[in-house]
Amino acid sequence: MNSTNFNLEKSIQILERTPAVLKALFYNLGEDWITVNEGPQTWSAYDILGHLIHGENTDWIPRAKIILGDGADKTFEPFDRFAQKELSKGKSMEQLLDEFAQLRESSVQILKSWSLSQEDLAKKGNHPELGAVTLGQLLATWTIHDLAHLNQVSRVMVKHYADSVGLWRQYISLLK
Amino acid sequence: MNSTNFNLEKSIQILERTPAVLKALFYNLGEDWITVNEGPQTWSAYDILGHLIHGENTDWIPRAKIILGDGADKTFEPFDRFAQKELSKGKSMEQLLDEFAQLRESSVQILKSWSLSQEDLAKKGNHPELGAVTLGQLLATWTIHDLAHLNQVSRVMVKHYADSVGLWRQYISLLK
Repeated sequence: MNSTNFNLEKSIQILERTPAVLKALFYNLGEDWITVNEGPQTWSAYDILGHLIHGENTDWIPRAKIILGDGADKTFEPFDRFAQKELSKGKSMEQLLDEFAQLRESSVQILKSWSLSQEDLAKKGNHPELGAVTLGQLLATWTIHDLAHLNQVSRVMVKHYADSVGLWRQYISLLK
Repeated sequence: MNSTNFNLEKSIQILERTPAVLKALFYNLGEDWITVNEGPQTWSAYDILGHLIHGENTDWIPRAKIILGDGADKTFEPFDRFAQKELSKGKSMEQLLDEFAQLRESSVQILKSWSLSQEDLAKKGNHPELGAVTLGQLLATWTIHDLAHLNQVSRVMVKHYADSVGLWRQYISLLK
């Protein structure tokens, strides 16, 4: 992994901050900002929180356990990108933020408890669509998955005011 | 302003949260994440914080004061998008985060103290490049300016791991 920018400590720094970042932005924020999306089949902040929760439960640590475990079959379960539609039903944004924070804290504790070596990070699993991937790549993807959804939700929120900024629109690259 | 999504209370909600969002992400974060950019002449998180500070000092509230004030000339001072290079010199990221938080708190206090009416929000100023703009448009732009820079910095950080995620790269739209 030395030829990339990946570093376990750097990744943990981001992974353990994300719940606080999302709480700082979304806890008790007005309904418009929570529910706005980019049109049919696109995601709001509320949808993204449900997706992040489902990832903690079924994606990142479970897949790392498959890679590090004794099983002969290292194939991951497929991840359901739309599970949150059912799983978030009836929950407030604040409940989702709290639930995500608890799950992530537990995930990071597990990750730290493994004290992963460079050898561990090079161990492989079998992604159902992509094929062979390493634990290091899984952890790097987990890290920027948080940041990519922060990128997505900030874009959605910028667009919510597209018609409100008048002539300034031409200075905001997301609105061009 | 009723034909747009702009609403003063909604804007204040974002404006007063941004310092905490940035602190949650960047306070005591590793140097790599703070200084990474997208190449020459592009901005890192550190650069963006300096830019936000300069905006508090010279852009948003000062321009609102010109619009609301008694002066006959409603032309804004041009904003220097590169002033942070000099102004941030020698300061740590944590110093910039604290400075921005203090300035923003003061800005929001001033904004709230004005108890702006719909009539106030329709008042106009003269942007040195764009021409006539309203106070409502200025406040909408201020709001999504925060979010656009959150979008920018999250994109920069995702790209930092572009070579670390292996085959997952094809699932991350920012890396395509």
